[in-house]
Amino acid sequence: MSLDRNWFTETSSQNGIAFSLHIIAKLHEEQTSFQNIAIYQTTEFGNLMVLDGYVMLSDRDNFIYHEMMTHPVLFTHPKPKRVAIIGGGDCGALREVAKHSGLEQIIQIEIDERVTRLAEQYFPTLCESNHDSRINFKFTDAIQWMANAPTDSLDVIIVDSTDPLGHAEGLFTTDFFRDCRRVLDSKGLLLQQTESPLLHLPLLQSTHKFMREAGFTSTRTLQFPVPVYPSGWWTATMAGDNITHFRKDDADNATINTSYYNSAIQVASFVLPNFLLEALPE
Amino acid sequence: MSLDRNWFTETSSQNGIAFSLHIIAKLHEEQTSFQNIAIYQTTEFGNLMVLDGYVMLSDRDNFIYHEMMTHPVLFTHPKPKRVAIIGGGDCGALREVAKHSGLEQIIQIEIDERVTRLAEQYFPTLCESNHDSRINFKFTDAIQWMANAPTDSLDVIIVDSTDPLGHAEGLFTTDFFRDCRRVLDSKGLLLQQTESPLLHLPLLQSTHKFMREAGFTSTRTLQFPVPVYPSGWWTATMAGDNITHFRKDDADNATINTSYYNSAIQVASFVLPNFLLEALPE
Repeated sequence: MSLDRNWFTETSSQNGIAFSLHIIAKLHEEQTSFQNIAIYQTTEFGNLMVLDGYVMLSDRDNFIYHEMMTHPVLFTHPKPKRVAIIGGGDCGALREVAKHSGLEQIIQIEIDERVTRLAEQYFPTLCESNHDSRINFKFTDAIQWMANAPTDSLDVIIVDSTDPLGHAEGLFTTDFFRDCRRVLDSKGLLLQQTESPLLHLPLLQSTHKFMREAGFTSTRTLQFPVPVYPSGWWTATMAGDNITHFRKDDADNATINTSYYNSAIQVASFVLPNFLLEALPE
Repeated sequence: MSLDRNWFTETSSQNGIAFSLHIIAKLHEEQTSFQNIAIYQTTEFGNLMVLDGYVMLSDRDNFIYHEMMTHPVLFTHPKPKRVAIIGGGDCGALREVAKHSGLEQIIQIEIDERVTRLAEQYFPTLCESNHDSRINFKFTDAIQWMANAPTDSLDVIIVDSTDPLGHAEGLFTTDFFRDCRRVLDSKGLLLQQTESPLLHLPLLQSTHKFMREAGFTSTRTLQFPVPVYPSGWWTATMAGDNITHFRKDDADNATINTSYYNSAIQVASFVLPNFLLEALPE
């Protein structure tokens, strides 16, 4: 059957698949200096944000992505105080990061301020921590920002970017990772979203390679479901010099309210299927 | 954008989503006594089987589903000898089961013989064990078959069914589970596919309830990705009286070739996110 105009469809032509959400209305659309932003109201997935035709998040399932992009890396670092989020304009990762009471400084570097302004309007629950006094918003190019940031000034960097196309392409390079490594102190950790393990395995492999070329001695991929992303299955990759540490007691005792994440999920998310074990470095 | 006629689309109207695969050709279509069967050649996912408009499997990703529907339950049972597969006409689960050299008797009860005949033609690798002398095919109604099967005559039952609609609806009932329990011996285990944890949580909950009403003292859900199924995220639920046992050494030492499954994946697949821990019985 074909879908009528009451559906939003994201086509992944290279992968030969498409994913559609039934919509009630288009709530907003604008062209910014960086991209086209559209907001839809869907029948079953709440509000939906789309950037240049690619689904960014839905109300219904974003909790999985945002919890898994934040809590595993923050509970791996021995004592995180200073965190930067690259991208993340919808503020969902920011909200999860802000749940960690030990943090002192949280910087979010998003290139397109309109993403954040529209998130405040259409995804208000994701933005409920935006006025936390520890948070500093920078609406600027993250690659440039990282190149100029002081050495040893961060504990954790979370790259919550769009797909490696257009302005996000430079976030998946050895040069960018080398800047991240310089800006992180010696115990610092980098976590980057690395797409679908089924559809984007070459990108996942090159990200490990580039992170190691940049000087990180260890890299490790974790996996989780994201039903609105192509294949419904997604990864993030962590880089650092000690990435097997886990503050499990802190994770168990923290008064952090989560719908997906728990300490057992943290451990399980790093367990990889055979074809990934064969494709990725140890 | 809208998709032209070169796409096969499965619409999950109740869930407000649709999933499409880009097709090169429709290779076959027929109406059997039980259902409509269509086989497509896709651009990126190999061959695709569709029953009554619902995606059953693709060449590219079926390994995950078939490995996770079989090896976890077989390595949980202390010494399986006699296994029945309910449904499973594509023979993908059967191929995985047949990899276990300790089994003596494997019965597959599929209602629609045409599914198996078309799998032999269009998914030959899934059928490569079909001539194993331990395998006995029964093309008949599994509910009736189970009602008449001898008491204590099986060690493991795997229900690899379609969605709980039409002829598969009776497989998700207390009556059917009670028959399974009678036919299993005291160490016997049942494993049933139980749909998407995000989209079909009420079904998952009722399956646990019905399995326990049927007398199984323990039930436990495992999860895994299935990119071609709605939400890309799927579950199976195990029932028995000792379902936490795991023959890990056997899993590690078995000469079973798998692309997704390994012993660490078995353990990780049973780790559930918070919202499922809250929704399901312990």
